[in-house]
Amino acid sequence: MEFTINTTKRTEMIDITDKVQDVISKEGIVIVFVPHTTAGITINENADPDVKTDILRKLDEIVPKDDGYLHAEGNSDAHIKASMMGSSVSVIVEDGKLLLGTWQSIFFCEFDGPRKRRVLVK
Amino acid sequence: MEFTINTTKRTEMIDITDKVQDVISKEGIVIVFVPHTTAGITINENADPDVKTDILRKLDEIVPKDDGYLHAEGNSDAHIKASMMGSSVSVIVEDGKLLLGTWQSIFFCEFDGPRKRRVLVK
Amino acid sequence: MEFTINTTKRTEMIDITDKVQDVISKEGIVIVFVPHTTAGITINENADPDVKTDILRKLDEIVPKDDGYLHAEGNSDAHIKASMMGSSVSVIVEDGKLLLGTWQSIFFCEFDGPRKRRVLVK
Repeated sequence: MEFTINTTKRTEMIDITDKVQDVISKEGIVIVFVPHTTAGITINENADPDVKTDILRKLDEIVPKDDGYLHAEGNSDAHIKASMMGSSVSVIVEDGKLLLGTWQSIFFCEFDGPRKRRVLVK
Repeated sequence: MEFTINTTKRTEMIDITDKVQDVISKEGIVIVFVPHTTAGITINENADPDVKTDILRKLDEIVPKDDGYLHAEGNSDAHIKASMMGSSVSVIVEDGKLLLGTWQSIFFCEFDGPRKRRVLVK
Repeated sequence: MEFTINTTKRTEMIDITDKVQDVISKEGIVIVFVPHTTAGITINENADPDVKTDILRKLDEIVPKDDGYLHAEGNSDAHIKASMMGSSVSVIVEDGKLLLGTWQSIFFCEFDGPRKRRVLVK
């Protein structure tokens, strides 16, 4: 199963929990996989949007956009952040529901947008 | 399956390998999932406790507790570290045993304790 | 299933996609697991080798080799990087093919080589 999302900024975190919930089956483990090398995926807090802002700002500080990188496309920071966050998350499913904690959502992490992106779910 | 742990410090790494080993079945893949947004999970060395100290200290340096974050709860550092470590690990199981390397243990990573925490295993 | 690789430098990223592709079955999810605590695994760009160089260089800057670590073996940086990249990746398999994006490869990340290393696949 697969869905697409359109990102609107260079870096942003988009809550895709509902989209994943829509396509999962009854029982087992779901893997949500991002088939891109300048975007990642993570699970974090969905309540206060400041958390997303703080995460993205701190990642920008740790891995600045311009920093003498060799890669000519100018988006090495996005590749590095993608590996730091990871390309997939695994979540347990019971009774057709994602077993997430109260404050957890699944976030697609755009690090070199805006772009049209794909997310694979199994 | 699920178990709880009580953490005793603001940041610490707790070896949960035995607890995971106790609840796994014969064969397949186990996923160990932390349903919290200010704690993470990782696999690393179990022999020298200095490794845990070094990991936690370096994470504190990369992501300081106070750093002009917006999130009003004052624990943005914990959210960021949680995403850097990840919310789950996957381990191969054979003959009822976790296929870990000689020096590997599974560590629950508390980043905003002390708290009572849950760990989900499937 | 398992294969070995010989790394040749202290830190390097080695594309193991073909080795994983060789041992997977028809359908499902493959987990590729590194049973070491000073090496990690990640998915990133395979086209421009500069991306690997940029990732390794930036990780070296974030986590320097010598930085007052307690762990007496002198490779704490490798342990920390291993946890930042992670010890496994999960990839969806369809029709016997890894469902990777166009630019994605699976990279074994050596952080304390050269060594002979194992990779487990299930």
